Amino acid sequence: TFSRGIQTVTLIPGDGIGPEISTAVMKIFEAAKAPIQWEERNVTAIKGPGGRWMIPPEAKESMNKNKIGLKGPLKTPIAAGHPSMNLLLRKTFDLYANVRPCVSIEGYKTPYTDVDLVTIRENTEGEYSGIEHLIVDGVVQSIKLITEEASRRIAEYAFEYARNNQRTSVTAVHKANIMRMSDGLFLRKCREVAENYKDVKFTEMYLDTVCLNMVQDPSHFDVLVMPNLYGDILSDLCAGLIGGLGVTPSGNIGANGVAIFESVHGTAPDIAGKDLANPTALLLSAVMMLRHMGLHGYAKKIETACFDTIRDEKVLTKDLGGNAKCSEFTADICRRVQDMD
Amino acid sequence: TFSRGIQTVTLIPGDGIGPEISTAVMKIFEAAKAPIQWEERNVTAIKGPGGRWMIPPEAKESMNKNKIGLKGPLKTPIAAGHPSMNLLLRKTFDLYANVRPCVSIEGYKTPYTDVDLVTIRENTEGEYSGIEHLIVDGVVQSIKLITEEASRRIAEYAFEYARNNQRTSVTAVHKANIMRMSDGLFLRKCREVAENYKDVKFTEMYLDTVCLNMVQDPSHFDVLVMPNLYGDILSDLCAGLIGGLGVTPSGNIGANGVAIFESVHGTAPDIAGKDLANPTALLLSAVMMLRHMGLHGYAKKIETACFDTIRDEKVLTKDLGGNAKCSEFTADICRRVQDMD
Ligand SMILES: CC(C)[C@H](C(=O)O)[C@@H](O)C(=O)O
Ligand SMILES: CC(C)[C@H](C(=O)O)[C@@H](O)C(=O)O
Repeated sequence: TFSRGIQTVTLIPGDGIGPEISTAVMKIFEAAKAPIQWEERNVTAIKGPGGRWMIPPEAKESMNKNKIGLKGPLKTPIAAGHPSMNLLLRKTFDLYANVRPCVSIEGYKTPYTDVDLVTIRENTEGEYSGIEHLIVDGVVQSIKLITEEASRRIAEYAFEYARNNQRTSVTAVHKANIMRMSDGLFLRKCREVAENYKDVKFTEMYLDTVCLNMVQDPSHFDVLVMPNLYGDILSDLCAGLIGGLGVTPSGNIGANGVAIFESVHGTAPDIAGKDLANPTALLLSAVMMLRHMGLHGYAKKIETACFDTIRDEKVLTKDLGGNAKCSEFTADICRRVQDMD
Repeated sequence: TFSRGIQTVTLIPGDGIGPEISTAVMKIFEAAKAPIQWEERNVTAIKGPGGRWMIPPEAKESMNKNKIGLKGPLKTPIAAGHPSMNLLLRKTFDLYANVRPCVSIEGYKTPYTDVDLVTIRENTEGEYSGIEHLIVDGVVQSIKLITEEASRRIAEYAFEYARNNQRTSVTAVHKANIMRMSDGLFLRKCREVAENYKDVKFTEMYLDTVCLNMVQDPSHFDVLVMPNLYGDILSDLCAGLIGGLGVTPSGNIGANGVAIFESVHGTAPDIAGKDLANPTALLLSAVMMLRHMGLHGYAKKIETACFDTIRDEKVLTKDLGGNAKCSEFTADICRRVQDMD
């Protein structure tokens, strides 16, 4: 629960097009008079004691204080042994649920029109444990770690999400026919949690079957919950159905309200600084953030303005099929937001 | 290399609709005068010494002698500890490459028209190692095993396939950004093998990116090679793009010419025995088999007849959008095959 009045959010503009799209979001929030104040922080990793990479202390303190962050794209680290900053952020703040609503956007044509689903990915363990060994020369093992604790937690998150967002079903996605113990444990926890949510329909499906059915008819799916790697795959697949990472929001949710919302597309260095980027993914992530903070009115207003601009097809960035600049697209959304008052 | 004259193939009709669709394939092969003689075998697992499940000896001997098999769907075993027969077959005969060509079928409408790709899946190790442990109560690990040997073998298979089938590129699909050692090893072997196939373009892509791009525009992809689980997922996704498992052929290839071709759809118990099944997936798998045996003329003839029947839209089974019986659909293909003489 959040106090009324202005709230501070940690803003991590990120690299490449990150600063431009962050500016776009700030402008739109200002036009909407959203009661948010931004605290900008950089998250370029630094080497801590013992040579371990870590989030810079100013960014960490800011997040610890504000609890909520909005993040643009970060460039992939190239130094050997340097972790993905995205993974480091998830880990540092124990952001255990990655949530991606995928909803068809009217006016933005893809082969699918009826997508309205949410992928909920376990964000802390599984195939992302980072534990790997060389057994003998030429033989390597990676360990997929599944715990009762994390499985229950993500299952509970999924059912709570379904209940609180007027969703009717949760599907657990797994390969327990192959990974009987690990996916079996995950699935068992989902089943147990489902017992406490009799108002939400529970189903189970194999990952391969989900992928097959998804491209044939995504409209059947609602909330999907799954281990880490499956979520990585399925969330990108689903983003593809509605137009790609340029229009798909994402949230990483932890305990006690802590959360970082982020656009999951790249830094697009080729167009960075040229006022050509599409801020939609970051904006819709910021809209998710507003909902997470209980600011539903502002969320609705901004989301509606953004979708209206896209549906209208007159002022679109290049990737959306138009030739407007980022600033023009942003101004069109601002105008609509202001007109709503 | 195979001798001319009539060759014997082990036929495993399978369960549910398996016998009907096998009969359909045999009829069409007869109409085409394909020089194949069938040796029918059942593969219901039996318990061997020490209680281990195994392929019945008559089926095993038949495969060992004939080297080539054609297999319908098998029902999922329900006994505890009973292995998937599909997995047991792959293991018993070391069928290390699962090959699935996915080509858009003219006349069968899906959101995609330009699919023409092949997934090549490592079929023996990776996430399918079957090695799992309970570490402590509530903590389970599954082991993904990647070996230099199996990675090189599948990479070589993929490049040979590309070269022999007029394909221009091979893409290695991986998550080496996360599983640096295991997927890293797989990827390194692909890169090494690529050096020996300068006539084939080599690229690398993350699995999540492949899934995203695949649903946006599958026409860019050609031959894709990947570890076991990724192949399980991606092959089903790609099957979905062209109409599902009812129209997608599959081959499991081992060393020294040994191979089992199979339809990968289910046994469809609800329509079994009612002359309603669609034999296309098994038929196209049999066509792959003919090509594998060097019988390209017969392969072309049967494939053309099958695609003509589908394009014509007059005699289609229910799942293909018509109301013909399996036997009518089969007869239409037989007629076309005979007309070609
Ligand atoms: C950047 C990368 C480490 C990450 C992942 O694999 O999880 C990305 O693909 C994602 O989905 O956020
Ligand atoms: C039946 C099952 C064990 C199998 C798998 O997971 O590999 C199937 O999905 C396949 O793709 O052949």
